[in-house]
Amino acid sequence: MFGGIETGGTKTVCAVGTDGVIEQRTQFPTGSDPAALAARCADFVADKDVRAIGIGTFGPCDPDPTSPGYGHILATPKPGWSGVDLLGVLAPELAAPMTMTTDVNAAALGEQRFGAGRGHSNLVYLTIGTGVGVGAVIDGRVLHGATHPEMGHIRIPVLAAGGVCPYHGNCFEGLASGPAMAAREGRPGGEIADDDPAWDLEARIVAAGLHAITCMLSPQCIIVGGGVGSRSGLHRRLPGLLTRSLAGYVAVPDILAPGLGPDAGVIGAMTLAQDQSQG
Amino acid sequence: MFGGIETGGTKTVCAVGTDGVIEQRTQFPTGSDPAALAARCADFVADKDVRAIGIGTFGPCDPDPTSPGYGHILATPKPGWSGVDLLGVLAPELAAPMTMTTDVNAAALGEQRFGAGRGHSNLVYLTIGTGVGVGAVIDGRVLHGATHPEMGHIRIPVLAAGGVCPYHGNCFEGLASGPAMAAREGRPGGEIADDDPAWDLEARIVAAGLHAITCMLSPQCIIVGGGVGSRSGLHRRLPGLLTRSLAGYVAVPDILAPGLGPDAGVIGAMTLAQDQSQG
Repeated sequence: MFGGIETGGTKTVCAVGTDGVIEQRTQFPTGSDPAALAARCADFVADKDVRAIGIGTFGPCDPDPTSPGYGHILATPKPGWSGVDLLGVLAPELAAPMTMTTDVNAAALGEQRFGAGRGHSNLVYLTIGTGVGVGAVIDGRVLHGATHPEMGHIRIPVLAAGGVCPYHGNCFEGLASGPAMAAREGRPGGEIADDDPAWDLEARIVAAGLHAITCMLSPQCIIVGGGVGSRSGLHRRLPGLLTRSLAGYVAVPDILAPGLGPDAGVIGAMTLAQDQSQG
Repeated sequence: MFGGIETGGTKTVCAVGTDGVIEQRTQFPTGSDPAALAARCADFVADKDVRAIGIGTFGPCDPDPTSPGYGHILATPKPGWSGVDLLGVLAPELAAPMTMTTDVNAAALGEQRFGAGRGHSNLVYLTIGTGVGVGAVIDGRVLHGATHPEMGHIRIPVLAAGGVCPYHGNCFEGLASGPAMAAREGRPGGEIADDDPAWDLEARIVAAGLHAITCMLSPQCIIVGGGVGSRSGLHRRLPGLLTRSLAGYVAVPDILAPGLGPDAGVIGAMTLAQDQSQG
């Protein structure tokens, strides 16, 4: 069996299984004490026979095995986690080879192999909620680069004022996230009905991000999920808006809903371990 | 030895060599007759002992070996070339295994292996001239996806009016290309001195594209060349503007000048063949 650990912003999910099938699973708050988190992960893994463990973590992180900072969480506002050597904390507790990527890359890999993206070797996973997170699989492997993409922070044409990103104001996340929509509309997204015209503007903003993703990575499909991203008021508008925005110059990727729900990340983390273990 | 063929928009370059060193080289107009072009390529290759041939072609094209349209040029305004099976035309003339990518991907690969990007496994090659072309190497391999990226056609924040892209108006290429700058300034770029303030706006537009590329692909460096891209009025402004635009959220990649000059594409095409041949 292979282990998967998804350390998300609020909760951590651990699972063991093979070929995308979860045999056992647990979850607990991520909290602000890395050592305590490692101990809880170890408790879960201890009596399972795992050959390798994949980690999908909140970012920013250093997922480059050739880097001196491999396995570290970088600067983050999350209390207790800035600069923490996540793999270093977990390694003594978990006696198995480990591999790390971002939570959204793990979700992209899970969806590509066992979810909505089956049959595609190139896809993007986009989650829109508290923030905008984007992961990508290229030729069946997660996309890293020098550190890892932060596609939520591209600057897009400014379709609305008052973006909420503390770094870039009106970037993709600054305009499209749940808090951005709430600030713009004066009420949380949960209170906005799917037939409310507020989704028109939100969808045009998201389509601008999808246009950039399409031109940058040429994915076969883009999976759009998350608290905001899964809303039908948004989701159903995206294919038409993206088609119009691309204007026939490049093929329009399929816009899909996630197939694995909240387990995409941990299934992807398990898959990362299995891929690594099987070369 | 390995062969490289770069079929550019105006000229085609053929070369043979090994490990990035060109032994022999020729060039001629690409023209509008694919069969005639193939014959000229064959004339050059015929008496050389090549194990494999790499092609870097103008696009759009289908570089996916698993696709039924593999090796074809897609819809293009270039006379004589729309829908042409480029690999199919070349194959009977050239008795060697062939691999294909875009001209800019080939240039990215050449620069990564033997040019300004040596030592980096993830880089982007950006050329700004008549158009905006972008190629990328990820983990040492060229980036394709479903077809191939068309990063010049992302929509960026609109920093100037009157973009010239016939598909998207104010996209990256529509605002940053040589013709866009010429239209905006009322004179060709070649007549604009490097200390002219016109480069301020041009550089802010290009920096918006670099910001998106950085967040999307996390490259270690971005090589910026081409008739407009190589101008010092533009090039020297880019690192500062990109740093300001990214605002400390992600690391700023090095902005470099090309190291291989006009041979980047054909050296990359040779390298593609050598990589393919040596697995």
